Amino acid sequence: MNAYEIIQKKRRGIKLTKDEIAYMVNGYVSDEIPDYQMSAFLMAVCFQSLDDDETAALTLSMIKSGRTYNIHSDVGGICIDKHSTGGVGDKATLVVAPICAACGVYIPKMSGRGLGHTGGTIDKLESIPGFRTNITHEQFVKIVRETGFSVMSQTGDIVPADKKIYALRDLTATVDSIPLICSSIMSKKLAIGADGIVLDVKVGSGAFMKNTQDARSLAQSMLGLAQKFKRKAVAVLTDMDKPLGRAVGNAIEVQEACDVLKGKAKGDLLTVSLSLASHVLMLAGMGSAESCTAQAQRVIESGRAFECLERSVTLQGGNAQALTKYSLMGKPADTYVVTSTRTGYINAIDAERTGLAALALGAGRKRKNDPVDHSAGIKFLRQYGDYVSEGEEIAILYTSSKTDMEQIGAEFEQTVSISPSRPERRPVVIEEITS
Amino acid sequence: MNAYEIIQKKRRGIKLTKDEIAYMVNGYVSDEIPDYQMSAFLMAVCFQSLDDDETAALTLSMIKSGRTYNIHSDVGGICIDKHSTGGVGDKATLVVAPICAACGVYIPKMSGRGLGHTGGTIDKLESIPGFRTNITHEQFVKIVRETGFSVMSQTGDIVPADKKIYALRDLTATVDSIPLICSSIMSKKLAIGADGIVLDVKVGSGAFMKNTQDARSLAQSMLGLAQKFKRKAVAVLTDMDKPLGRAVGNAIEVQEACDVLKGKAKGDLLTVSLSLASHVLMLAGMGSAESCTAQAQRVIESGRAFECLERSVTLQGGNAQALTKYSLMGKPADTYVVTSTRTGYINAIDAERTGLAALALGAGRKRKNDPVDHSAGIKFLRQYGDYVSEGEEIAILYTSSKTDMEQIGAEFEQTVSISPSRPERRPVVIEEITS
Repeated sequence: MNAYEIIQKKRRGIKLTKDEIAYMVNGYVSDEIPDYQMSAFLMAVCFQSLDDDETAALTLSMIKSGRTYNIHSDVGGICIDKHSTGGVGDKATLVVAPICAACGVYIPKMSGRGLGHTGGTIDKLESIPGFRTNITHEQFVKIVRETGFSVMSQTGDIVPADKKIYALRDLTATVDSIPLICSSIMSKKLAIGADGIVLDVKVGSGAFMKNTQDARSLAQSMLGLAQKFKRKAVAVLTDMDKPLGRAVGNAIEVQEACDVLKGKAKGDLLTVSLSLASHVLMLAGMGSAESCTAQAQRVIESGRAFECLERSVTLQGGNAQALTKYSLMGKPADTYVVTSTRTGYINAIDAERTGLAALALGAGRKRKNDPVDHSAGIKFLRQYGDYVSEGEEIAILYTSSKTDMEQIGAEFEQTVSISPSRPERRPVVIEEITS
Repeated sequence: MNAYEIIQKKRRGIKLTKDEIAYMVNGYVSDEIPDYQMSAFLMAVCFQSLDDDETAALTLSMIKSGRTYNIHSDVGGICIDKHSTGGVGDKATLVVAPICAACGVYIPKMSGRGLGHTGGTIDKLESIPGFRTNITHEQFVKIVRETGFSVMSQTGDIVPADKKIYALRDLTATVDSIPLICSSIMSKKLAIGADGIVLDVKVGSGAFMKNTQDARSLAQSMLGLAQKFKRKAVAVLTDMDKPLGRAVGNAIEVQEACDVLKGKAKGDLLTVSLSLASHVLMLAGMGSAESCTAQAQRVIESGRAFECLERSVTLQGGNAQALTKYSLMGKPADTYVVTSTRTGYINAIDAERTGLAALALGAGRKRKNDPVDHSAGIKFLRQYGDYVSEGEEIAILYTSSKTDMEQIGAEFEQTVSISPSRPERRPVVIEEITS
């Protein structure tokens, strides 16, 4: 067995054995297989794909490359994980986790940092003064036990193969392959050992999956894997043609999540969060869809969800006062108000371009390890479907970084389309897939 | 412009611009683009291919990566190049070049070394004691002027991009792509500056092109390139389902070529050589196909072709006596006679397996820079279509290397198939393509 033959076989569309896939993953992690052979292999996979068995073998090899946990027994109760395939303005974890924790389900969440036009939960939480995300597994377990949830940075010991392979995919245009995305996501989820996984699969211009069909394929592939590994799972397809909610950035996204948890904000973020939360509760055996949704709404109304967030933030070293007194998260040095150039209905807000504008403002990172400007971002004053007049304020851009605000602002105007007729209302929760 | 975007574009099947292709080639040669991005790009090309414009742009960028020559003006007359896409037992250059030189056409030939199951003309010529192939361009030109032909090793200053890219393709299963093969071959031919090029495109189990259709595509692609670069060219598709001629190795292939030049041997090698030689003469404007073939036959009969070989070998430092007294090329330490296990007609001699057996005997190299055993090889006593009795000698294996002769011999028996019925005669020259 050698890497050349395995690449050749996949190039020709021949099914690989478990051993061949393990050989590639182990060889790559141990530096015996060089980057250039792995990248040729990954590109061949992009064209020839992997079937369910191959995807499962890849996932298993990746899990075995690192440490695995049994979070259920560590925490001592049913643990449900939640994962988003990545979008713009997606702060749903910050809403869903406290809701579910308040309902009595443990949510141990390992998250990543943002890269490119999509943000990361870790970066968002670090807007809170003092908040530490690089905590130990023991601290993580302790906080989950006490508050019901904790969000920590993905540690290097979990699925190191994914870390190495993803970095290579990111440089070789081999990211958007369903089996590769599936194994990358699921290996990390399965390594933690939660009892169930709720997958938020984003669909649209701002997501990896541009259309419902591809998103459904990815969802089914992930659910199939969960089944092979004997975990409960459900997937929710949600809209990412436009950003989720009103804020795109870090501090302002935490603030928007707080507003929802305080019952002060309605709209798509609440809708998506309630859907995801009710699925988490259902996987945990808390009852029917109606009952679970009602429980989720109740802990918002009672304030218990927000209290959970405050407690968890405090235990992770954060200043929980900032969750109410937002100025404690720091103020942007510079703002720019974007006004409408036309009168009419907002019929599109390009999610990817919004993400790229936020990136340009300093809210994200172009390269790994770049610093992030937590104050930077975009807040929409008006949303999809709203009627706006020429000259009316649509959005505010924020930054504390050295950027050409005028140019970013001018470009950003292209991101919002306005038409004379009222656009169709599309549901933000597109589809729920249970198997 | 960056490598990621170019890889992504090709992955999606979008046509690349000249500048994008030049960016990839130049960036790779200057080490700005790493191996792993180039290998991902090459794999994407294997799936999405390159059209004629892209292939021409790739070829031009590769040519520009190194030094170019104008061999016509250096030598002072019409120069025709001859290239084989590579096969087992292919010593046609050693027959064609002296024939054409004897007819008054200059053949300046740069050749490579063998790798894997196919041999290289340079290795073969080095079987002749004293023969030097790493001569300077000035020596090369001088010998071509004096004798009509010279064969020298490809120098590093010609198309360094191909050298680097080929080495990567060889490790990443991206060799067998028509545009990549085409640009690799043609960049080197075009850089030398011959007036015309005769291409011997091998077809069959022992060649890169397994079927006539693929071989025709490759031929047409190469001829199209020649036209774009304003060179005359012709392609001859020849059979490589079985080895060419009776000998596969180094010294024994030189000996077989000498036998043909002395008029002592007939068969496929003579047929292929006469076809290629007549095309060389036609490209040089020496008359019609019939007339050119007749001229070629005449210089064999008159002994002038063989004299040309002797003179050229002498000028390159070789002992020309070895071309008649074969024992001067050294004798193999060990021999093994392969006998037929059945009675019947030989209906197949697997070219690739024959090449691999010769490789195992030491005639080739598994890795670049491996030494070559010039005495090693396989001589067929009987050929395709011959009737053989059980126990009759079919072939002799030679080696001076430390090998398991018994095992190679036993495996080699599988290479020759014998059937009760006489197999169909297939022409060794399959097709001639002029544009």
